[in-house]
Amino acid sequence: MKPIALDAMGGDHAPRVTVEGALLAHKQGIPVVLVGQTSVLKQELKNQGGDLPIAEAPEYITMQDQATDVRKKRRASINICMELVKQTEASATVAMGHTGATLASALFGLGRIQGVDRPTLLIELPSEKGRTYLTDGGANVDCKPEWLVQFAVMATAYAQAQGVQNPSVGLLSIGEEEEKGNELTLQTFPLLKATPGIRFYGNVEGSDIFKGSTDIVVTDGFTGNVVLKLSEGEARTIFKWVREALSSGSVITRLGALLVRPALQGLRAKMDPAEYGAMPLLGVEGSVFIGHGSADGRAVHSAIRKAKSVVEASLVERVRAGIARLTG
Amino acid sequence: MKPIALDAMGGDHAPRVTVEGALLAHKQGIPVVLVGQTSVLKQELKNQGGDLPIAEAPEYITMQDQATDVRKKRRASINICMELVKQTEASATVAMGHTGATLASALFGLGRIQGVDRPTLLIELPSEKGRTYLTDGGANVDCKPEWLVQFAVMATAYAQAQGVQNPSVGLLSIGEEEEKGNELTLQTFPLLKATPGIRFYGNVEGSDIFKGSTDIVVTDGFTGNVVLKLSEGEARTIFKWVREALSSGSVITRLGALLVRPALQGLRAKMDPAEYGAMPLLGVEGSVFIGHGSADGRAVHSAIRKAKSVVEASLVERVRAGIARLTG
Repeated sequence: MKPIALDAMGGDHAPRVTVEGALLAHKQGIPVVLVGQTSVLKQELKNQGGDLPIAEAPEYITMQDQATDVRKKRRASINICMELVKQTEASATVAMGHTGATLASALFGLGRIQGVDRPTLLIELPSEKGRTYLTDGGANVDCKPEWLVQFAVMATAYAQAQGVQNPSVGLLSIGEEEEKGNELTLQTFPLLKATPGIRFYGNVEGSDIFKGSTDIVVTDGFTGNVVLKLSEGEARTIFKWVREALSSGSVITRLGALLVRPALQGLRAKMDPAEYGAMPLLGVEGSVFIGHGSADGRAVHSAIRKAKSVVEASLVERVRAGIARLTG
Repeated sequence: MKPIALDAMGGDHAPRVTVEGALLAHKQGIPVVLVGQTSVLKQELKNQGGDLPIAEAPEYITMQDQATDVRKKRRASINICMELVKQTEASATVAMGHTGATLASALFGLGRIQGVDRPTLLIELPSEKGRTYLTDGGANVDCKPEWLVQFAVMATAYAQAQGVQNPSVGLLSIGEEEEKGNELTLQTFPLLKATPGIRFYGNVEGSDIFKGSTDIVVTDGFTGNVVLKLSEGEARTIFKWVREALSSGSVITRLGALLVRPALQGLRAKMDPAEYGAMPLLGVEGSVFIGHGSADGRAVHSAIRKAKSVVEASLVERVRAGIARLTG
């Protein structure tokens, strides 16, 4: 396997956490190439007592940059990552942070798979059945019905690459019945029903996401992004309240809290976005993963691991085949 | 105060829970009139050993009925409730269940406040600061920017009636910056900025809802309904996982679980939709509250209490004044 190209300059805590995550992956035998300013990365590797190959990139995108700045900073680390993937020198790009810039860089450097109107970001959320794949996570705010159909096909390919047999697809709406929804979902419903190669379940509601009623939930990128941020925020608030309830109670409560702490920590991890690592960008000619800008070394490591599993499962070929079936 | 008209036939467990909730309210000195089939309600009152005034309604709307059926069943209990409010025989309508039918009945029986394009359902969600008022909760799936402005004005009037001084208004979007969002939010942002009588904060994200960054969050009814159902569903799933984590662990965990149980039950109540009781329908010529179809007696009681507090705070007059200021 060709190494995974990690944008070592991206995210809030680069290059410390990117190098840390890359070293963790390397220890597990996953080949990684750090992309960024050689002198900075060499110093960081030295600090952490590790050694990894480096691909030089004199520039990088900051969180203050616009997505379109990837066109101005041609030698930015994220662009070099895409170049390595394009030239099959690397098997995937992993970047923490600037979603818009990574998306723009992927479109610019790799291009879309033939037949794909818009690439989509796929989110993973924990559910009572395991996990729910949600598309689109925020790459396309205003969507056409045909795009949602393509998202469903690409998410199906992704879920299959992750080992889900015959994944079911739900259309996020405000009622189960076919006639419930907004203009977009009402137009999308019959198209999804007629789409070959996907298992369409029908409409699902907000309550179905954590219940895990379907493997995949399809929606526009505005709603999807609200869902992503709300679900993370709500989990954070509830766990905060649990902590407060347990620590501010009576002596008996506080004793109990001590005893249940390990069990609750296990649960916390289940809800932790860092466990899921990164979102795949589907529909471009290469494997691209985007993680949280606030990622720690463990989250970077998860992202690299996820990229590896997807590359091994021939994700891009699967997406290509799904879209080809769609366009006849 | 004129009695509150309760649609005693509405919801999944009527008339048992509606009568139960009405009797609880009556004990607290809140006047209630039960609206529905006299013989059925007399029997239920007898079963529960209570006595309340009844307004006869020979028909009622079931959960299987369409919203438009309120036009066919002219003497349905929900229509009689609105009639009583219209004739100032009752001070508010409280209905559990069929949101669409209650909305249609309110529009038909009470009409819109002058200047209001679309009435809105307002949701209350728990937040780290207390609560977040979210509008629209699902009455209007595809919205125009002007409607969102009216929702903001009406929600401000409601929050003030509930005692919030100078409530702040956030526009739900996918980034804090003014230029982030979909077509609808991009067009709505400058309008909200220029609206008199509201305190506009700017864009908020999904993560701000539970954080409580603003008192009010404005969005279209599609997104709002997804937010409502997702947030309820996620809370349910997390508490289920907490219960499982505590009951399936070691003996030590299970002992601890016993000790922390009261503290966690208190927290659970905080997240319980039954505590919030019902959603107000804002923008019609009367006070109307809609509760969960699955409500129990306690939730019906909460809904009646909420209706009382709002009537006493002159909600309809406040909404009227806010909208009048808007239209010049």
